[in-house]
Amino acid sequence: MNAPAIIRETSNTGRSRLLVESLFSELFAKTRDDPGVTRECYAAGEDAALQLLRTTAETYGLKCSTDRAANLVISLPDDDFSQPALILGSHADSVPHGGNFDGGAGLLAALLCMIRLHESREPLPWPVRFLALRGEESAYYGRANIGSRALFGLLTSNDLNAKRQGTGRSLREAFSTVGADVDVIEQGTRLLPLDFAAAYLELHIEQGPVMVARGLPTAIVTGIRGNLRHRRVVCRGEAGHSGTVPRWLRHDAVFAFSDLLMRLDEHWNRLLERGIDLVVTIGVCGTDRERHTISRIPGESYFSFEVRSQSFETLEGFYELFRSECRAVSEQRRVTFEFDERVYTEPARMDEAITNRLRKLSEQLGFVTELIPSGAGHDAAVFANAGIPSGMIFVRNRNGSHNPDEDMSVEDFLDGLDLMYEFARRGL
Amino acid sequence: MNAPAIIRETSNTGRSRLLVESLFSELFAKTRDDPGVTRECYAAGEDAALQLLRTTAETYGLKCSTDRAANLVISLPDDDFSQPALILGSHADSVPHGGNFDGGAGLLAALLCMIRLHESREPLPWPVRFLALRGEESAYYGRANIGSRALFGLLTSNDLNAKRQGTGRSLREAFSTVGADVDVIEQGTRLLPLDFAAAYLELHIEQGPVMVARGLPTAIVTGIRGNLRHRRVVCRGEAGHSGTVPRWLRHDAVFAFSDLLMRLDEHWNRLLERGIDLVVTIGVCGTDRERHTISRIPGESYFSFEVRSQSFETLEGFYELFRSECRAVSEQRRVTFEFDERVYTEPARMDEAITNRLRKLSEQLGFVTELIPSGAGHDAAVFANAGIPSGMIFVRNRNGSHNPDEDMSVEDFLDGLDLMYEFARRGL
Repeated sequence: MNAPAIIRETSNTGRSRLLVESLFSELFAKTRDDPGVTRECYAAGEDAALQLLRTTAETYGLKCSTDRAANLVISLPDDDFSQPALILGSHADSVPHGGNFDGGAGLLAALLCMIRLHESREPLPWPVRFLALRGEESAYYGRANIGSRALFGLLTSNDLNAKRQGTGRSLREAFSTVGADVDVIEQGTRLLPLDFAAAYLELHIEQGPVMVARGLPTAIVTGIRGNLRHRRVVCRGEAGHSGTVPRWLRHDAVFAFSDLLMRLDEHWNRLLERGIDLVVTIGVCGTDRERHTISRIPGESYFSFEVRSQSFETLEGFYELFRSECRAVSEQRRVTFEFDERVYTEPARMDEAITNRLRKLSEQLGFVTELIPSGAGHDAAVFANAGIPSGMIFVRNRNGSHNPDEDMSVEDFLDGLDLMYEFARRGL
Repeated sequence: MNAPAIIRETSNTGRSRLLVESLFSELFAKTRDDPGVTRECYAAGEDAALQLLRTTAETYGLKCSTDRAANLVISLPDDDFSQPALILGSHADSVPHGGNFDGGAGLLAALLCMIRLHESREPLPWPVRFLALRGEESAYYGRANIGSRALFGLLTSNDLNAKRQGTGRSLREAFSTVGADVDVIEQGTRLLPLDFAAAYLELHIEQGPVMVARGLPTAIVTGIRGNLRHRRVVCRGEAGHSGTVPRWLRHDAVFAFSDLLMRLDEHWNRLLERGIDLVVTIGVCGTDRERHTISRIPGESYFSFEVRSQSFETLEGFYELFRSECRAVSEQRRVTFEFDERVYTEPARMDEAITNRLRKLSEQLGFVTELIPSGAGHDAAVFANAGIPSGMIFVRNRNGSHNPDEDMSVEDFLDGLDLMYEFARRGL
């Protein structure tokens, strides 16, 4: 094996490592909410995270400002915002009682990258700015990525009127509290200047188990899966006494549901064999709690349906299979299916030039290099679908995310940071 | 087609029909509890039904007494109880807001049969007595057939201490209220004298849809299905983000459950093709309400399991298949299954000589004659399993039972009554 073509920034020094560890500790301490951390969007936890970034950035001589959606922008002192920049992005908020690394890893990678770029003083192929976004974990208000969507004029009055679960505070009020320009946001105006971003790069922990299972400290993201969903599908058969109705006279809503699932499972399997990106999930199912009992043939069952893929065509294709199998099961098992509104979240492709560049740099750094899809949503999808060439670096993480047990090693993080840094300083 | 060998009692007279209609109306009026009727066991509704029987029986010159479990015994005036009798049985109670015919049809058939036998004055091959049982729909106290079980010493102190849902009144108190001999019942003594019954015959509406589907006004019951049950089986997999965990790393508790069901469905189908009596029901299933959500791979699912058959061997055989498929699914889909206590209710075979005799008489009456199993439990199962040769006549009924919509025609009822009457007067 050849020696790596790039000598790593962090390989021979303990300084980065110490700074990383102390910043992660501080971020945790300032947003701790046992178990885990809570950095609620447009509220105290998110503010605390942004404040830590601001203080640290200023200590290291970087410039701080906020955009009109109250996101924090950290730039190099000589950046006059006249040229389109590489945007390093991540989100400052978290789910309630989440882990320290979802969002946090991206924040500190971007911050440390900015500090290194500033300290190296070398000429860069592009301005590099760090956009610390608010409101990515904004399901409190019924939708994700509010902070980045606001930048592209993608929020509506309905979105602004949405009330936070629990407190009833509207998103409009929440925005006002942190100083966002609610009127402009409500008009659907694009807040991000057209010449602001040449490219967008986000580092994030992987939220699934693939990198642990495959032994990948870092990976490069090919795309972000979109999804097609039904919150609730109802399968209606006919209830009956479990002892007195023979098989040929049954309209069993649970056997019908299971039949449907096994048909979908077989299609899923075949599509995977052909290399198609696809996951299918029935997260919620059950019989009617008011009426079900051991000795009653279930006359009704309900379930959620979700298919995710990086490809719009795959989503639509699998959805057609789903509906077609529902029809087949209806006929064979004498039941009917009722569907609520179909909800679509667009998939996003990462930019091929960026992905290829990251792969090359990863190889030159001597890393194990693989491309994987992102199953979870990210602000990078909003940027990509707004036409900004985007890329993502994943860092290995155990135990999934959205829980206090997220587990990323500093070694893996430093690998991801080095990859981000090399990309930022060398350009495409 | 030959003319029927037996000229029907009811075919040329409106008298039986008028009496039947007026008795059903009275029974309904005295126990009405909109919607439907409520004849709670060891309580007012059941008492009212028994009182109607007693009054009518005495009006027609029959004798009435009660046994030590407070069931009503109606006998011919010359019956000194010295010889084993044919017992015509049915139950006087109902579920809350049930229909008029579940139990009621058997009561009035037996009563009208006794009246006819008395009026005909012909010598009989055996004494015939009508046992109007209490406490068949006794799920109020956690188990069915309390009235007949008491007669065979099959109740325990635990059973007597069971508290009625809702009121907290114990079965012991309920028994005392109606004058049953609680002390003897508690000792597990058989209350029914060994020479009391030569045979047991019960007429009942069918509680399933088979006779309507097949066009059978009456049918002869081959046996009463027993069952094997688990109230709750838990399938444990591993929860995960629906977008980030690929198929090969999933431990999906809902796909595993569905896989299991389709395996059982295939076995069920094959066994039916071989003529085996079997019904399989998963009446209750679902994902964990505390944790499930559309975008989470379900880490847990739960379900009830019930298999019913007239054959003990089929029950045990299918149960083994069930457990073996659970093991196979566990391995293939990396989940585990946890089982609560297995509950067994014995099946009962109707006596072959009685069944054959009923079939012959049914043919001689010119009826469409078919044998069908009973899926629901009946007091006849308790008598049969206590060693008394037993038989059952089913009468066609629409809309199932345990609901106010039970629907039996007087014509079909009179067919069943005639069959019972011919059996009673001609003997085996």
